[in-house]
Amino acid sequence: MTLAARLFDQLRAATGDGIGISRESYGPGESTALDIIEAAARAHQLPTERDAGANLIVTLPGRDPTLPFLATGSHLDSVPQGGNYDGAAGVVAGLLALIRARAENHTPTRSIKLYALRGEESAWFGRAYIGSSALFGKLSPDDLAMPHIVTGRPLIDCMRDAGVAVDRVARAEPLLDPASVAAWLELHIEQGPVLVARNLPVAVVTGIRGNVRHRSIDCIGEAGHSGAIPRWLRHDAVFAVAELITRLDRHWRTLLERGQDLVITTGIIGTDPAEHALARIPGRMHFSFEARSQSTATLEAFYQLFRAECAAIAEERGVQFRFDRRLDSAPARMDPAWIEQLRATLRDMGLPDEPIPSGAGHDAAVFANAGVPAAMIFVRNDHGSHNPREAMAMDDFMLGAELLWRALRDAAA
Amino acid sequence: MTLAARLFDQLRAATGDGIGISRESYGPGESTALDIIEAAARAHQLPTERDAGANLIVTLPGRDPTLPFLATGSHLDSVPQGGNYDGAAGVVAGLLALIRARAENHTPTRSIKLYALRGEESAWFGRAYIGSSALFGKLSPDDLAMPHIVTGRPLIDCMRDAGVAVDRVARAEPLLDPASVAAWLELHIEQGPVLVARNLPVAVVTGIRGNVRHRSIDCIGEAGHSGAIPRWLRHDAVFAVAELITRLDRHWRTLLERGQDLVITTGIIGTDPAEHALARIPGRMHFSFEARSQSTATLEAFYQLFRAECAAIAEERGVQFRFDRRLDSAPARMDPAWIEQLRATLRDMGLPDEPIPSGAGHDAAVFANAGVPAAMIFVRNDHGSHNPREAMAMDDFMLGAELLWRALRDAAA
Repeated sequence: MTLAARLFDQLRAATGDGIGISRESYGPGESTALDIIEAAARAHQLPTERDAGANLIVTLPGRDPTLPFLATGSHLDSVPQGGNYDGAAGVVAGLLALIRARAENHTPTRSIKLYALRGEESAWFGRAYIGSSALFGKLSPDDLAMPHIVTGRPLIDCMRDAGVAVDRVARAEPLLDPASVAAWLELHIEQGPVLVARNLPVAVVTGIRGNVRHRSIDCIGEAGHSGAIPRWLRHDAVFAVAELITRLDRHWRTLLERGQDLVITTGIIGTDPAEHALARIPGRMHFSFEARSQSTATLEAFYQLFRAECAAIAEERGVQFRFDRRLDSAPARMDPAWIEQLRATLRDMGLPDEPIPSGAGHDAAVFANAGVPAAMIFVRNDHGSHNPREAMAMDDFMLGAELLWRALRDAAA
Repeated sequence: MTLAARLFDQLRAATGDGIGISRESYGPGESTALDIIEAAARAHQLPTERDAGANLIVTLPGRDPTLPFLATGSHLDSVPQGGNYDGAAGVVAGLLALIRARAENHTPTRSIKLYALRGEESAWFGRAYIGSSALFGKLSPDDLAMPHIVTGRPLIDCMRDAGVAVDRVARAEPLLDPASVAAWLELHIEQGPVLVARNLPVAVVTGIRGNVRHRSIDCIGEAGHSGAIPRWLRHDAVFAVAELITRLDRHWRTLLERGQDLVITTGIIGTDPAEHALARIPGRMHFSFEARSQSTATLEAFYQLFRAECAAIAEERGVQFRFDRRLDSAPARMDPAWIEQLRATLRDMGLPDEPIPSGAGHDAAVFANAGVPAAMIFVRNDHGSHNPREAMAMDDFMLGAELLWRALRDAAA
């Protein structure tokens, strides 16, 4: 059995929850996962440490320690009942690269550091990228007060328990100087079906989509007896929202045909159980809104189109739309030189080099937005992520790990 | 103060619930309302009785008691926190007609009987028209076992408490021979806004819409990460249902332009709180379906169109629709000769005679479907019904009562 397969098995056995695996952010499963990786690194004579964010760092020392170091890695937490590879694949791939360098007696010019990060999943505290955000002093007092979804315990207390220097985090003090990092290189399973559909074992990521969101928008019409009010006197909230979504879907199709990068989703929708009925014209309903794109300009243009369609439908149907706070998350571009380098390496390996965008968020976005050149490698994965059915083939993983190794070796040389 | 206003005040005072009025089917408020009407009838020397259905009957005896009698009336129960006029207006108008005949020493050829019916509202036991259905032996054992929505007590026990001959009802024995009834004439407030919008104080009803319904249809797509799955790989249940509803809305508009009678409603819609999320492609949602029309042919044609659109969208979007039991309720046509007679009387009164359909159900539908020629008079009413804000002007009511009086007088002459 290969080292990679053994490590994945160890992680699965130690953090399984009966259905999938659960590695709670700043909780026991996550800490156990860090310990497993640390033990494997030490068994291969790689020095390890925990940083002020309680992340695990494994170092392959370079010849010139004054040079900015190359960073690789991913996160080791998971969603509840999640899959074994989401996050862990990147950490295991990074460890394989460091062990291989040791085995081949390869000492790079600049150091290479593997980060096994904590707290990437938003499932436990409602916010993503906690671990990488803490590294760059990006957690607010509101963030630190967020209650654990099950226990209600504030994030800051859970971080303290895990060994984080919470005083520094609370002062928004960076725990890592971006200028000390030459690049962040992260391997991750794809959380969507594109690589499967395109038959690509691995791919280079062009960027991480940002988004604009509303958690809950109300459409207010007028309730009434479903039999007694003819069409011309109706202000039906469901018909209004159905038409809105249908129009957005058409705009979406058109924008895709024009080559824009965009996905839109209304994940939550509903009439109000306190007042809805089979035979009652729905006087109100709520829905969520999300658009994602790699382009800030596309996001903003689509958002304005969305608001214009709301206004048009409000006018035509005599309904009102009430908006909650607009939430924005900026897109992150991966470093163009790194993208080119990775694609060239893929071609050297005899593999197709078609790049794809990442719809899901990753710690790489936090590094990129902190000013660190960042790049990502996706590994093909079936059945999506955030569920126990995620399925990454070990052959695909080994191709991704090979690409990561070559990229680190060449960049650190 | 007129007798009508005094009776409405008495009913409101005796059955108010602090917010609206509550006259529970086969409960105390309903019985109180029957008592108030009975006392007023007796005060005007009109004979009263309770039939085997525990309904109140007030009789103006005709010269030839062997002739089928004319029946008028409506129901005296209400929804919880309902309005004072829904049902009661028809009973009070009928009583005014009988008192007027007495006062003018008018003895008709055939008897006129006022029915103050029980149990019309579905709010208490989940089924409408209980009282009139019992008259014609149309309650099933399942109906009689229906639990009271608050107390859980079976309908049959509540009926027994109110004085109904439940043994006969349980045997599905008709309590009233349809052949003994020359016609059923019911005045009721309009439960929709059409008379207000058309500026008509009263109108003659052409028919009572039937309906075809599904309580809950599931649309099954495929859940997934909202950022990671591009449009061409999505099976989004919300987009599918939004498009379905938008297509139905367009067909509806087209059918109205062709002169069909139709209203359609999706009163209940929603994603599943157990699995939906802002950033998750909705893999499933549910929605209700209702179409109402005076025409069975229109209902059936529209239903087939609906199923065809479901099949088309399922095909195009890779989703599935799962249907629960189809529920049907037959339309009831009001008697054409009665409609003509009532419209002619309206013209005699100098009023517009534009007829309108009834979208809501009424006891008149039960009489009509039992073979009794039936007709209805609507009185203008603002703010809909089934809420305490229903607003019928007494001037409009008196015009309706005048129309009812003239129609009864002429038909019984």
